[in-house]
Amino acid sequence: MNLAAYMQEQKQRIDCRLAQLLQPERPQFARLYEAMNYSLLSGGKRIRPILLLATLESLGKDSAPYLDIACALECVHSYSLIHDDLPAMDDDDLRRGKPTNHIVYGEGMAILAGDGLLTYAFELMARQTHIDPEKLARSIQVFAHAAGPAGMVGGQSFDLESEGNIHIGREGLELLHYSKTGIIFEAAITLAAILGDAGDEEKQALDVYGTYMGLTFQITDDILDVVGDEAALGKPVGSDARNQKATYATIFSLEEARQLAQEAADKAIQAIAPLGDRAWFLRELVSYLLVRAQ
Amino acid sequence: MNLAAYMQEQKQRIDCRLAQLLQPERPQFARLYEAMNYSLLSGGKRIRPILLLATLESLGKDSAPYLDIACALECVHSYSLIHDDLPAMDDDDLRRGKPTNHIVYGEGMAILAGDGLLTYAFELMARQTHIDPEKLARSIQVFAHAAGPAGMVGGQSFDLESEGNIHIGREGLELLHYSKTGIIFEAAITLAAILGDAGDEEKQALDVYGTYMGLTFQITDDILDVVGDEAALGKPVGSDARNQKATYATIFSLEEARQLAQEAADKAIQAIAPLGDRAWFLRELVSYLLVRAQ
Repeated sequence: MNLAAYMQEQKQRIDCRLAQLLQPERPQFARLYEAMNYSLLSGGKRIRPILLLATLESLGKDSAPYLDIACALECVHSYSLIHDDLPAMDDDDLRRGKPTNHIVYGEGMAILAGDGLLTYAFELMARQTHIDPEKLARSIQVFAHAAGPAGMVGGQSFDLESEGNIHIGREGLELLHYSKTGIIFEAAITLAAILGDAGDEEKQALDVYGTYMGLTFQITDDILDVVGDEAALGKPVGSDARNQKATYATIFSLEEARQLAQEAADKAIQAIAPLGDRAWFLRELVSYLLVRAQ
Repeated sequence: MNLAAYMQEQKQRIDCRLAQLLQPERPQFARLYEAMNYSLLSGGKRIRPILLLATLESLGKDSAPYLDIACALECVHSYSLIHDDLPAMDDDDLRRGKPTNHIVYGEGMAILAGDGLLTYAFELMARQTHIDPEKLARSIQVFAHAAGPAGMVGGQSFDLESEGNIHIGREGLELLHYSKTGIIFEAAITLAAILGDAGDEEKQALDVYGTYMGLTFQITDDILDVVGDEAALGKPVGSDARNQKATYATIFSLEEARQLAQEAADKAIQAIAPLGDRAWFLRELVSYLLVRAQ
């Protein structure tokens, strides 16, 4: 199977399950569920859940029992986008070619839709009674740590504080990107290692892969904000430069940024050599990130 | 020991532990942690965590191993207050006599402080490795369900939608109050029943107690918004009437509301008769709610 077909197939599994999950038990809460589903079901590449499922498969496991855990990752990703787009944060009107959540449902409901998706993600994880509860508790801990104040929320606060300050330097930029994005990719892979009983060598290989795969994603994301096609991306380009944001494509030249992405991709691919053929997707995913258009 | 001394002692345990919990690992995230601690450590009655600890004790258990679970409940309560106070929600400037989070830290940081506290609560729960992981996973599930879109977040969305609509009727009012407040009290008690190995009869008794204790709390809260003392409450009174909010004190007369509170308290006390003397605190707590000033 090739990469595009594999990703499409996984995306369909995930989309199909996500569409079943959030159904209001009471008519009075219908608008909240509509707002949550509006963002959750608006497409997206589903990279985080695919990464979890693919890593399990590269460990030789059946990924089917872990589909809901993968969906929980996507719920948290969706919440983070809704809150990031709010007027008090990035103030974006458009996401994936559609009006953002607060534009459609109002600011108050958008805040609640985010809160609801975040809380629901932990309920969804915790109710997987077919998973060994010790591994489940450990997975919840790792994921909450990555998504919480020490990770993604912390990164977002640092972003908010340093907005308009392009001078946070390479160290600041790396922390920003790692905590906003990389840490969640890493967590997706760590969860797969926990749930899929990875051995020490496999765990170590996957850890390094996660770090550099996340970095490749973030650098190419920054490059796309400069050279990307608005129609393919579904959002305006050039906003980082306009907002004086420190990104790999604003504090480095495009050529330097491409070089950094290539180096990170090489390290990611090298790291998972011990996993052999079963990790073909993880390898090809990194190569794809270098040439992606969205 | 009397009720006031017991509550004071429990509150001190909880306050002391809460003050240790949220320490930034990176200087770049210091402001976020400051914003989270600003609300988390600003006092409050700590009723939810006390309820968890006291219920465990009324089941004859040592509550010490569950202090962090109790603190997680308070983190979620604190997040809900920060988000409720936001301009897009209730737009309150004052809470417990102090400026609300967004007044001090700005709207964006206040949203993140809430997100951070909510996510951290689940990390804190999940990392209690001394607790049987099956009970832990079940506790996380129950609590996330109560706090999420089917519970507290749903209630908040219904509140937002029905703001200015005093005509939601008694049924609407009951749903609003149950899902915004009662469901969390119930969850605190259910968690104690799960963690404290309650038998079927005890579980049943505690369930009913939780429902009516929560109702007593909510009705008396509504009454305090009419007759309370601003200095004692640390917030303006009369806002429910001004905002045309449906509450027990706006759709009923004060006398009727007091009568409803008394009936709910009687049912709560009656429910836990099977628990005997060990449940003295749960009994006295309900009586105290009827006469509280804050």
